[in-house]
Amino acid sequence: MDTSYIDALGQRAVAAERILARAGSRLKDAALLESAKALRDNTDAILAANARDLDAARENGMSEAMQDRLRLDAARIEGVAAALEQIAALPDPVGRTLSGSKRPNGLDITRVSVPLGVIAIIYEARPNVTCDAAGLCLKSGNVCVLRGGKEAIRSNQALVNVLRGAIERAGLPADCVLFVDRTDRETATALMQAVKYIDVLIPRGGKGLINAVVQNAKVPTIRTGDGNCHVYVDAKADPEKAAEIVFNAKTSRVSVCNACETLIIHRDALALLPAIKARLDEKGVTLYADERAIGYLPGAEPATEADWETEYLDYKLAVKTVDSLDEAVDHIERYSTRHSESIVTEDYAAAQAFVERVNSAAVYVNASTRFTDGGEFGFGAEIGISTQKLHARGPVGLPELTSYKYIVRGDGQVR
Amino acid sequence: MDTSYIDALGQRAVAAERILARAGSRLKDAALLESAKALRDNTDAILAANARDLDAARENGMSEAMQDRLRLDAARIEGVAAALEQIAALPDPVGRTLSGSKRPNGLDITRVSVPLGVIAIIYEARPNVTCDAAGLCLKSGNVCVLRGGKEAIRSNQALVNVLRGAIERAGLPADCVLFVDRTDRETATALMQAVKYIDVLIPRGGKGLINAVVQNAKVPTIRTGDGNCHVYVDAKADPEKAAEIVFNAKTSRVSVCNACETLIIHRDALALLPAIKARLDEKGVTLYADERAIGYLPGAEPATEADWETEYLDYKLAVKTVDSLDEAVDHIERYSTRHSESIVTEDYAAAQAFVERVNSAAVYVNASTRFTDGGEFGFGAEIGISTQKLHARGPVGLPELTSYKYIVRGDGQVR
Repeated sequence: MDTSYIDALGQRAVAAERILARAGSRLKDAALLESAKALRDNTDAILAANARDLDAARENGMSEAMQDRLRLDAARIEGVAAALEQIAALPDPVGRTLSGSKRPNGLDITRVSVPLGVIAIIYEARPNVTCDAAGLCLKSGNVCVLRGGKEAIRSNQALVNVLRGAIERAGLPADCVLFVDRTDRETATALMQAVKYIDVLIPRGGKGLINAVVQNAKVPTIRTGDGNCHVYVDAKADPEKAAEIVFNAKTSRVSVCNACETLIIHRDALALLPAIKARLDEKGVTLYADERAIGYLPGAEPATEADWETEYLDYKLAVKTVDSLDEAVDHIERYSTRHSESIVTEDYAAAQAFVERVNSAAVYVNASTRFTDGGEFGFGAEIGISTQKLHARGPVGLPELTSYKYIVRGDGQVR
Repeated sequence: MDTSYIDALGQRAVAAERILARAGSRLKDAALLESAKALRDNTDAILAANARDLDAARENGMSEAMQDRLRLDAARIEGVAAALEQIAALPDPVGRTLSGSKRPNGLDITRVSVPLGVIAIIYEARPNVTCDAAGLCLKSGNVCVLRGGKEAIRSNQALVNVLRGAIERAGLPADCVLFVDRTDRETATALMQAVKYIDVLIPRGGKGLINAVVQNAKVPTIRTGDGNCHVYVDAKADPEKAAEIVFNAKTSRVSVCNACETLIIHRDALALLPAIKARLDEKGVTLYADERAIGYLPGAEPATEADWETEYLDYKLAVKTVDSLDEAVDHIERYSTRHSESIVTEDYAAAQAFVERVNSAAVYVNASTRFTDGGEFGFGAEIGISTQKLHARGPVGLPELTSYKYIVRGDGQVR
């Protein structure tokens, strides 16, 4: 495999990293504010690039929904600029003293947060991810190497050019934000394997991307965004809460990883199904139900094994009947991607058992799975939702974009 | 690749994990204490198995030093048993509330530590690692899948049998500790790639093993134990501290990852070299020095590029002369494995610059690199020293063997 393109980018990344890692909060925040301003000032140029992406997308027959994800307008650019200003206002995650102690031999040990180093981010259609990811990395002292989707390459390139100019004007190396302007698979694989230059890889995208990363990456990875989430309506569920939570978790935004994909219903709560269905009908949700549930859901289709495994990201919902909380937990254990699961119940013991036994990044009682989000959790911003257990789990905010080192001060101690 | 052997082990691991993850501290500590007792009670059988390993080692011409690492005796088994008792006495790292907040919408969010799940550990000669690793995993609620070196297979199998029996008598599944009794490379590779069953892989061993893991692993990894460590003797170093720290960091135990491999000396401190050499001569350390240093070190050999890169793990030390702290930092940046580096100086600004700019797991001022160790850092125990930035850096103790989940309690909130 020819790695020369990625090697060259990697060398620039490492050179910029050494400067960025030592930049104080003021310099980083100035670069973020300058970037926000530059995005506003260059709205026309960015929209022109985006229009060329949209032209190509239409020619290639891209769906309307996908075109909408790709589309930028003045309001979206304003939103992205405002997000950078919000990131600037957050506390600096670097240089925090995380813990420390004086050892019996007099050694003074402190654990201090430091940037991860160089973060590669591979993502798909939405160009606003370019600015969000660059902003979060900059704030946390990390150089980012961005590799977006082919469909958005003109938009992404325009955005990156604006950001790089702004960062340089603020007094930091433009190479704090690097862009991979090749969208072939070989270059992506070289990036995933560039252990010499890249400290962490964050893939943001669908199942295909995640699988490619699991199969090919040699760089340590924070896996994000695969969400086969469940709402379990328990025997003792409050009927109204059940209908509202299922409705919200399924329909408030179907294309996101924290949307509900399977409703698990206790056999003693089957009678709640018609009311739940009535709410879901408002949005035209198609139901795929097992044998016991289907009788309560006129018009539903029979569920197959594939339905339990599928992250629909659509107005579709699987419905599974269980005899017990145990069986609900088993179903989740088997099919969940360990992103977010919720129990709807008024029963204390059931709630406690569910939160203790379900091993997902976020486990809810009487609330929608849609809350698994950095903003909703109070993090201010996030780069994705991790579904792995190593390093970070759930929303990945600024503190999760840091590592730490131990600083040990002595006066001649030997062991 | 035939993965059936590892798949079968993996399924047993996952089944045991579900029980172990919910076991309370009392049950886990009882299993640790029972294991310690069982090791003492079965000393003869373990030593008999170890003798067979040693016979085979001698037949295969293993070096005396390696045989010593492989050798068990009653005192070493007592040490391993006592270590398990110490692990039992440490605080349970699982179930801690790490942080939490009440959100404006009334959602009650707590972040709680949970086990990582199933941890695979691939290690080399020393059989005591078997018990240490099993004990740390058990305490942290993780099922371990142990794959030791071929040379120690009889000893490891005997130790694992004793541990499994004890764990079962204490009321936990014997499968909390699983042993890979095949030492071929294909099985090791299958283990590194068993993403369906293994949550985390921890390799403990030399460069060859680490490289094999970087190249082949698909399971998220905590990379440990590669240590090309530096001591930098600054222009303003105290002569006595310099000699003592270099002597200790190089010679107190040469085979470990926190031993010093290169001495970097400021040109204004070159006159300290004869006194440093006098101490190193006591242990017969061979020096590989650059052109400027070699005149101060009669008998030293000329250093080559390879010396800067080599982790000798032996009575050998490279000596590099620099004109400035900047150049020392550059040398470390280029050649270090980012494990541990130390500056010897009485100059405040130099000390501050060094700890800020050197990006290694542990950065010392006026102390030996040999202190990078879970016990010395006050962790009670460790499973290795991480040289990666993701998840854990430096000594990996019990808290680093956990992940976390968010528990979110509501009363009907939707988004």
